[in-house]
Parts: sequence; C-alpha cells; structure tokens
Amino acid sequence: MKDVIVGVVGIGRIGRMHVHNLVHRVPQARVKAVASPHIDVEWAHQMDIPVATTDADELFHDPELQAIVIASPSGRHVELIRRAAHSGKHIYCEKPVAFEEEPIREAMDAVQKAGVQLQVGFNRRFDPSICRLADAVRGGEIGSVEGVRIVNRDPSAPPIDFVRRSGGMFFDFTIHDFDTARFLSGSEIVEVYAAAAVLIDPEIGAAGDIDTALLTVRLANGALCTIDNSRQTNYGYDQRFEVFGSKGNLVVDNLRPTSMEAYLEGGVFADRPLPSFPDRYQDAFIRELEAFIGCVADSSPVSVTAADALASVRAATAARTSMLENRPVQVAPVTTTIEGVGP
Amino acid sequence: MKDVIVGVVGIGRIGRMHVHNLVHRVPQARVKAVASPHIDVEWAHQMDIPVATTDADELFHDPELQAIVIASPSGRHVELIRRAAHSGKHIYCEKPVAFEEEPIREAMDAVQKAGVQLQVGFNRRFDPSICRLADAVRGGEIGSVEGVRIVNRDPSAPPIDFVRRSGGMFFDFTIHDFDTARFLSGSEIVEVYAAAAVLIDPEIGAAGDIDTALLTVRLANGALCTIDNSRQTNYGYDQRFEVFGSKGNLVVDNLRPTSMEAYLEGGVFADRPLPSFPDRYQDAFIRELEAFIGCVADSSPVSVTAADALASVRAATAARTSMLENRPVQVAPVTTTIEGVGP
Amino acid sequence: MKDVIVGVVGIGRIGRMHVHNLVHRVPQARVKAVASPHIDVEWAHQMDIPVATTDADELFHDPELQAIVIASPSGRHVELIRRAAHSGKHIYCEKPVAFEEEPIREAMDAVQKAGVQLQVGFNRRFDPSICRLADAVRGGEIGSVEGVRIVNRDPSAPPIDFVRRSGGMFFDFTIHDFDTARFLSGSEIVEVYAAAAVLIDPEIGAAGDIDTALLTVRLANGALCTIDNSRQTNYGYDQRFEVFGSKGNLVVDNLRPTSMEAYLEGGVFADRPLPSFPDRYQDAFIRELEAFIGCVADSSPVSVTAADALASVRAATAARTSMLENRPVQVAPVTTTIEGVGP
Amino acid sequence: MKDVIVGVVGIGRIGRMHVHNLVHRVPQARVKAVASPHIDVEWAHQMDIPVATTDADELFHDPELQAIVIASPSGRHVELIRRAAHSGKHIYCEKPVAFEEEPIREAMDAVQKAGVQLQVGFNRRFDPSICRLADAVRGGEIGSVEGVRIVNRDPSAPPIDFVRRSGGMFFDFTIHDFDTARFLSGSEIVEVYAAAAVLIDPEIGAAGDIDTALLTVRLANGALCTIDNSRQTNYGYDQRFEVFGSKGNLVVDNLRPTSMEAYLEGGVFADRPLPSFPDRYQDAFIRELEAFIGCVADSSPVSVTAADALASVRAATAARTSMLENRPVQVAPVTTTIEGVGP
Repeated sequence: MKDVIVGVVGIGRIGRMHVHNLVHRVPQARVKAVASPHIDVEWAHQMDIPVATTDADELFHDPELQAIVIASPSGRHVELIRRAAHSGKHIYCEKPVAFEEEPIREAMDAVQKAGVQLQVGFNRRFDPSICRLADAVRGGEIGSVEGVRIVNRDPSAPPIDFVRRSGGMFFDFTIHDFDTARFLSGSEIVEVYAAAAVLIDPEIGAAGDIDTALLTVRLANGALCTIDNSRQTNYGYDQRFEVFGSKGNLVVDNLRPTSMEAYLEGGVFADRPLPSFPDRYQDAFIRELEAFIGCVADSSPVSVTAADALASVRAATAARTSMLENRPVQVAPVTTTIEGVGP
Repeated sequence: MKDVIVGVVGIGRIGRMHVHNLVHRVPQARVKAVASPHIDVEWAHQMDIPVATTDADELFHDPELQAIVIASPSGRHVELIRRAAHSGKHIYCEKPVAFEEEPIREAMDAVQKAGVQLQVGFNRRFDPSICRLADAVRGGEIGSVEGVRIVNRDPSAPPIDFVRRSGGMFFDFTIHDFDTARFLSGSEIVEVYAAAAVLIDPEIGAAGDIDTALLTVRLANGALCTIDNSRQTNYGYDQRFEVFGSKGNLVVDNLRPTSMEAYLEGGVFADRPLPSFPDRYQDAFIRELEAFIGCVADSSPVSVTAADALASVRAATAARTSMLENRPVQVAPVTTTIEGVGP
Repeated sequence: MKDVIVGVVGIGRIGRMHVHNLVHRVPQARVKAVASPHIDVEWAHQMDIPVATTDADELFHDPELQAIVIASPSGRHVELIRRAAHSGKHIYCEKPVAFEEEPIREAMDAVQKAGVQLQVGFNRRFDPSICRLADAVRGGEIGSVEGVRIVNRDPSAPPIDFVRRSGGMFFDFTIHDFDTARFLSGSEIVEVYAAAAVLIDPEIGAAGDIDTALLTVRLANGALCTIDNSRQTNYGYDQRFEVFGSKGNLVVDNLRPTSMEAYLEGGVFADRPLPSFPDRYQDAFIRELEAFIGCVADSSPVSVTAADALASVRAATAARTSMLENRPVQVAPVTTTIEGVGP
Repeated sequence: MKDVIVGVVGIGRIGRMHVHNLVHRVPQARVKAVASPHIDVEWAHQMDIPVATTDADELFHDPELQAIVIASPSGRHVELIRRAAHSGKHIYCEKPVAFEEEPIREAMDAVQKAGVQLQVGFNRRFDPSICRLADAVRGGEIGSVEGVRIVNRDPSAPPIDFVRRSGGMFFDFTIHDFDTARFLSGSEIVEVYAAAAVLIDPEIGAAGDIDTALLTVRLANGALCTIDNSRQTNYGYDQRFEVFGSKGNLVVDNLRPTSMEAYLEGGVFADRPLPSFPDRYQDAFIRELEAFIGCVADSSPVSVTAADALASVRAATAARTSMLENRPVQVAPVTTTIEGVGP
C-alpha cells in the first residue's frame, strides 16, 4: 500500500497528539514535515520527521506532500486552509474551522476551486460506541428517530485565558454536540433554544461566557434533542449519548479505565469515567485520521466536511442569540452530507 | 399501635390498588368502607371491608372513619376534598387535585379551615431509589445542585378517550416530573420552556394534545432541569432521574424484573425495564399510604400537600403557554414545603 | 376462592416471617392457629390469629386445619412431620428436614402413608431471578448444561451457639446450594469434592465446623458445578448463580436495595447487595408459601419434596466425608422430581 | 531515550503481533531483525525491519541486538533461550517455556549463568483491569485473601492438530490461570484438585485431551481458588477474575467492544464480550513488551520469570495427575518472585 505523505501545521497539545497517531497508529501515513512558529526540532527528530520548520509555506510548497493536517490555533485555520488548498493539498482541519459563517464559506470555496478535500475534526463521528449507535439508527433498529439526548461535560473548567479566545462555550464545546445530534439523527437542526448559566466560576461570567447550558434542538424530521453541557464535573469527562425512536432507545454510557468493581463495607465502588478527551476519544482520534488518510489514498470523499462545520456554527450562532434573547431561534438549513442519510 | 380507620372513595384501577395496599401492606390501616357509583359489593366482601356503598356521604358521616382516600375520577377530586374536610376527615387524594389554580386553592382553604391534612399522590417522592437520591442531595454529597434530568416515558399511549379528558399531557403526566424536579432539587420552578410534538399518534394531535415533549425548567437556585417525556416506548416504562451538582452526579436508572443476563451468540440480553407504573412504583404506592396513615396516627404533618399540587399545576400551565407561544414562560412562586428544604 | 386454613408450629424468626407472609401476602391462606413452647399470645392476637397455644397437638387435632407450616428448631422437624401427616395435614417444613438419611426416609414414609403432601423450604427455587434462569435452561436457551456456578456467602458469621447445633456448614448452609445446583441443571449430583477451611473465626474451627468452602460437584449429565461458600462478607449477602451451556451462559447477579449510582471525585459508588436472607429472598419466601397453599387448594403436587431434601443431605454427607478425607466422594442417586426434568 | 535493539524469532500469529506492537506501540524498541524457517521477507520489509532471515543464529551473533523475543513453536523455546542467553541477549519468551520441569530448569540455569534476563509471556499480569485488582489486593483494600475465582473460557475449540501438540489443556490454557491465581493472591499453590470432562468435542477426547475443567487450588496462605475452564463459548472470550478477602470482594468482569445498550421490545441488548485474546489482551500484550524493553534499558529486573513458569508447570502437572487419579495432588513449592509479595 502506497504511503500518504503528510505535513502537520501546529504542534500544540492537539498537534502533537495527531503527529503521534499518524506516526505510530496510522500505518498508511508518513509524516514528512511539521511546521510551527514554536517548532521543537528535537521532538520532531525523535518522531523521525525529516522536516521541522517555522514556515508552513515550506510544507505547502513541497510537491511530495499530499495532505496537510492543521492543528494550529483556531484563528489561523481558514487562512491555512486557503493556502493549503491553493497548493493542491488535501486537508484535515481541527474544529472549529471558524466562529463565523463567512470565513467557513471562504474555506469551502477554496477547497472546491482547488478540487481538494477538507475533513473537519468532529472526532465523535469516529468513536466506536457512537458509530455503533449511529449504525443501529441507520439500520432501522429503533424505527423513526423521535429524540436525541447528549450529555457533554468537561472534567474541569478551562483557564480564563482560553475562555476569552474560545469563541464562547457554544462555539468551542457545544459545537461537537450540534454535529453529533445531526450525525446520530441523520436530520438537520431547524431551531435552537438555549438556557444557560454561570454556576461554576464567576470569572467565566466576567469573561463574557457561560459554564452551564441546557439546549433544546428541533430537528427537521420533527425529533427533539436535548444537549446538556457543563464546564466542570469532578468525576471525569461525562460523555453520554442516546437516540430514542419509535421502536426503542439506544444508549451509549461513559467508558471506564478498568472494569474492576470493589464490593466493600461502604458500598460497591468502580472507577470514574475516563478523565479527559484524549483518553475518551483516543480511538476516535486515530480512526478519524485513518479515515482521512484512506480517503486521500483512494480519492474517495471524506465523510465530514466544512458544510458540517457550517451547519454546527449556524446552530451555535442561534444558540448564542437564543441565550441572549431568551427565546427559541430558527436555524437556516445547510445542504450537507450526513453520512448515509438523504437530504 | 392503634389502627387508623379509613374509607376509600373510587374503586377504579387506582382505587382498588390503594385498597389492596391498605388491606394487605399497611398494617396500621383498617379499611372500613368503600364508596363508588359503581360499587362492587362482592369484591369489597372479599377484601373484608364491612361497608360498601354508592354514597360517599356514608363515609363522610361515619364518625369512626379518621381518613379518606380519594381515588375517584379527577373531576370530582376537589368536591370530595371539600366534603371530606368539612366532615373532619384527613385526606389522601390522588393527583391531579385539579387542572386549575382556583379549585386547588379552594381545596387548600377547605382543609385549612377544617384543620385536617391533605396528602397528594405524588408517588415518586416515596420510591426507595428516588428517596435515596433526594437524601444524598440533602446530605450534601454532590454539593450545590446545578441540574436535574428526568426521563419519564410511558410504555404505551393512553386511549384517545382518556387523552380527551386527561387535561393534556403536561397536567396528567408531566405533573409528576415538575414535582420530582422540585423534590430532588429542593428548589422552586421559576421558568418553563416546553418544546412538544405529536410523533406517535396523529389521533392524539387531533384530540388537541401532544405525545412527545422536551422541557427546560429553570429553578430558583439557578439550576437547569430537563424533562424528557414520551407517551410510548416499546421497551417498558422508562423512569430515570439524575441530579448534577458541584461535587458529583447522582443517577437512578430503570429497574428490571429480574437480574438475569444471558450471554448468547447474538449478544448479551437482559430484561426490559419494569413494564408499567403499578410495577415500577409498587413500593412507592405502599410507602405513600404508610406515610399518610402514620401522619394521621401521629398527628404529624404530611410531607406532600396541596401547595405542592399548586406548584406543579402552575408549572404545567406555564408549559402549555410555552408550547402554544413557543417561548419560555415565567412561573409565579408558591410558598410550599419541599421536605427538608428552606424556603 | 376457598381459603386454605393453616396452622404454624414454631414462632422464632423464620416462623414469624412465615406467619406474616401467610397473613398479609398470601390471600388464599388463613392462619387459624400458631403453636410454640414459647407462644406469644399478644403477637398472635395482633396478627388476628384466633388460636395461640403451647401444644402443637391442638393444631393437629383441629379438623378445620388443612395444612401445617413447620418452622420449629430443626431437631423437631421429623417428629412434627410424622404427627402432622398422621393427622392428615399437608405440610410445609423448613429446611433442613433432618441431618441424616434415616429420619428423612421416616418423614417420606409418613407422608406417603398418610397420602398428604410435604413441601420443603428450599426458597431459592421460588426466587424470580433464579426461576427466570431455570426457565431459560429448561427452554433450551443455552443448549446442554455444562457447568453451574453458585456463590453463597453469608453477610456475617453465625453465633457459635448456632454453629454448634447447626449440623455443620454443609448441612445448614451449603444444603441450599446442592438443591439449587440440581434445580438449575435439572441433573442429579453423583460426586462431591469439598475443600474447606477456617479462615474467618478460629472459634468456628474450635466448635468443629468450617467457615469457608469450595466444592466441586459432578452431575449425572456430566456437567461440573462449583459452589463457593463463606460465612462472612462485609458487603452484604452474596448470592450469585450461573449456568453455562453449549449455547451460552446465564448469570444472576446480586440485587441492590436501590438503583442509585453516585459519580463522585473518588469513583462511582452504588449500594451494597441486599444485606440478608429476609431481604434477598423476600419474594421467594412469599412465593413458596403461595405455591404450597395453591397445591393444597388444588390437590396438585408440590414441586419440592422430601426426596429433594434427601438428595441434598446425601450431597452434604458426601461433602463432609470429602473434607475429612480430602478426596472426592460418590453420591448414591435418589429418585427425585426436579421440576420439568426427566429422570 | 536510547532505543533497545531487538530481534524476534518466530513470525506466526503471535510473533507478528509482537513485531507489530514493538514497531508501532513500544517507542523505546527498535526491531532490527526477524528470523523464521518460514521467513516472509516482504512483510519484514513493510515493517521496516532491515534483517529478515531463516537463520536465528544471525540474530544471536549480531552484537547490536540487546534483546530477543521468542515466539517460535513451543517445542523450540528452551533451545532458543539457551542459545540467546549464551549470546548474552536478554530474552522475552512466549508461554509455555516448556511442558516439563527439567527443560525449564535448564533455561533458568542458562540465563543465570549468562547474567541475562528472561521474561515469560504471562500477559494477564499486564492487563489494566487485572493490575488494578492486584494493586487493590496489595494495597490491603480487601484485607487478607480468602479466595480467588477465575473464569477462563475460549471462544471456540482449537483445531485437533493444535490439541495434539498443545501439551494438554492444563499446560496450554490453564497455565495462565495458575499464574494469575498466584499473581492475584500473592501466594503459592500447594495443592490442586482437577475435575475435567469432554463435553464439547469428542475428537478432543479421542486426541487424549479434555475440553472442560473445574479446578480447586489451595494456596499457601490458606485461601481456596477456583478455576473454571472451557474450550468453547459461543459468546466471546470469557475472562473474569475475583479476589475475595476478609474486608471485601474485587471483581473484574468481561470487557465489551462498545458501551452501547439497545432497549428494544424483546429486551435490553448489549455487545458480547471481546471475541478473542488479541482483542481482550491487546493492551496487556503491548504493556508486557514495554515492561520488558524498559527493564532491558534500565537493567532492572523483569517481574515475571522462568521461576513463575516453573511454578505454573508444577501446578499443571499436579492437575494432570489429579484428573487421572481423581484425587487432590500436592505441589512442591518454588522460590519465585511474585511481584510485591514476600516469600
């Protein structure tokens, strides 16, 4: 099998994780180059990556590279997508592509004109348990979808610095849930009502954001979806998913690091759910890159695109308005491609 | 221990269940009389109940009776409460007391003037698992309450006849969830947003009701509560409860008839959740009557009153308005007594 | 439905429980009389039982009584069975009928001659989860039975006084497991190997008994069964059952008082298993008396007889020899009637 | 961190798995050479392994190689250990080292004389859930150990060819359980009683082996251990572990591929346990090589040695005798090093 030669832009926490996965877990990928203003040459050397540079253009101009993985700060995503597309590279870009509709459309135009593909980092779509659930829905196991329930709670509140430049919780965090609701139901979001609060840390409120939200999402097929967000549990990363249909209910519960249960005088004790996103979505992070690299190798279409990013940003925008005006807000339809589902 | 002599008005499905429980499961109670326009004398005889009459007044005028259990059709509840109170009887009344605020206030006035007690049939408050959850919240195990999640789904849609006279799903069904949200959180409802749909049976819609709803409830302490209702599953009576707080999350899952699991070629199979309310809340139905009879015997105050009924009816009324106008609706505060909680 | 008039001999802990269940939970039964050398007249009065006597003969001579429930100390079981049978009463007798083969045969002869029935108190056979398991085995869901696994561990070691007159752990405690192995597998015990130890309390050893045992039981159909006993956990009454077959494995796990789970910083916590036999087998105790009373009313054969007691005593006797001589010991076959199973 | 240069002998199913894990999952290892009579040069090339040879001596004579991983057929293990040790290489050897005591002692002598280390492939010791259990036992969470329960059942019976050269089920399969019992309890095996049968496939019996066994193992500390083996389930690879102690019970249940549960009309369905050893012990296989490579790099002692292999072979030998003579058989003590436990 011919390797796909990849370059990675951005070597922060997520960038390094993607590099590690590409090098060790995706046999079909070969990472030739990494770029970052804060490049770490020694680390690149240890990872057996020949090119380590501060200049992303080196990657775009390298004719051997077929694909670029973008894991830089969110503010640079669209610009990098444009440059990568212009150079004819296929692109995997971390979410969020952007916080506004206009730049996402620019990115969509750029990749369309260049005839390259752009896969967006909605990792949930590649989690084995969530895929199992989505497959069961697609397979008709629960009949027609009537409801979706998503619990997404972070283990601990992000630093205030991050909160300030995050685009707000709906854009940084709930964005995953909007996409997952669409993915699990196979239906588009048409209305959002967002109740929100600052219950965890007043500083988050002072920074203009919220830390707790309960969203009601109406889908085009009539189903009602609830999204339950919190920026802080103290029991791990709470990730639960349900789809209720005319013939049954499918439930994905939290995963735990071990299956041990202790029967003791004070009760029965088990491990907390997995503590953080790199643990919980470890397989999903690998599988999304496998899928991307596979699509590049096969010239087959990626399953999650900028149109999906656009749909979720529209929902997030509606959620923000809903919260500010305390009313349900309509969401304009996007023509997207939810895998395995008609329009 | 001196027996409490009880009369029961109404011998439909619920009435017979209460009689059965009083006779066989509440040792402190003695059922002396039952009344119903459709009295079944043979059945009363089998239950060893001396008096079986079509005239409820016989019960009210019997000086030996200390307490009346009202399980007649909802439309007669308030009238019967008034007459029972006037006769100086303590009263247990099935929910709903009434669908409107005014008659509930009349009932409250009547019992107050008569100096008798009125316990309302919010059975969830007496379920062992739900009580365990509420006790853990009261005991501070999860810190301050930030959210409540209630799933309440009926096994199968009620007959259209029942739908027509039910007062609407919010008044007949969600009413339990409003009360449970208050009970579990120890906080009052201040705002309701109700998204609703007819997804199960168009006839329910034609009858002017809905069969699916997703409610967002804001509580006075700032917590956000979600209530997830459906009139029909095909996997049993889905009853789940969660309270999320600053220090953890408490979960009450469905109960199953047996603990057997079958590991077979096609997967691991377990029993469905208990199929219906008499099974699921069997213990709760007994314990609420035990509590009521105990309060009558001890002259101690009942824990769930008409003020609680009033609070839930206000929430249901707000939910109806919210659904019709598609906007969140404020709920005026009621001075109630949520057990173990300050105002 | 005509009531069955019952007398109860023995009003210790178990006797009172049976009286309570007959009075409150078995509508078809009417308890007319109780007898005990330590009769508690006031308690009998509270239970609405007309006759309370120190003389069991009063019960045997009362022509109105159709059935006798024997819950006296084990040493008196056979004598009481003989007298009751002689008086033409049907008999429910608590386990163990006796610790030796000879007296059990006497009891069997007595009831056979008298043409009455004798049901033995192997409560596990009436537990809903265990019945569900047995039904699945009978229904062929797991093909042919290859193994049975029973965990039976008491919450706390019995008083030394009890140990001394208990007949030894195999006769008092494991006896249930021998019967359950037969019931679940539908096959007879042909060989027993018992490894045992005193690990919990040296006084139990000083009293000539053991507190821990692991038994290997060979069944006539070739299946291998393991029984895991301990006299003391500190996490409740550990009752687990499995049957492994050519097409799958059926598992009955412990039951818990509530379904609440707490997700906290230190882990996920659930209730301990039910603490003791009256809790764990509450339904089974009721259902075995319902079944017995039903058989008396219908003149239909009881499902668990003295022949079953004999089979289990033979296994217990083999277990004792096996332990003392540290070798597997054969068990002579008994012609019994395991429900739903051919010889 | 300096790489450890490794050679692998044997490229069957297990050998290729180890190579894959060393190349992709153990960053500290570099596989320089593979040897097999059936060498697959193209595969070695794809794995980026420079040397692929039919002659294992090439590996032993390469001074750059520090460690040898032996995954050849069991019959060659001891000879290869001797040659590798003689060449001064540290050794990881798949289980079983040998089926008899004498050759294991030869291997022990060879590595001792050469001053190299030999780690044996008892993968259970590196499984996260089993390690969690062992750590809890070591940490005193359940007080003193009174019992161990191991269920080890293969998903499907091995080919008869394999059965013939497997050494018998106790040596090929139960060997893991003997080691796990020692590891979990921290105590040595002193006596074994093995009840066995041919219940699955008469051809296995014709080949002189058994397919079902129930073993009772006495440990030096007095605890009683049960091992439950079958060569065939049809519901996956059944791997369960329990340790019961004076203060509680620790349970490791089967793992499932996803956490999805489906609530349907016919019941609640979940995935079967993981289907086979490469899935179930995927992490363990990686972690045992990480541990081995780490010990080579650090010159620290490996945690599972040929002495452990010897202890388990003695138990297996006793089990065979026990089965043939239907009696418990003593096991002579081995001075081994169970991690974290005194002699």
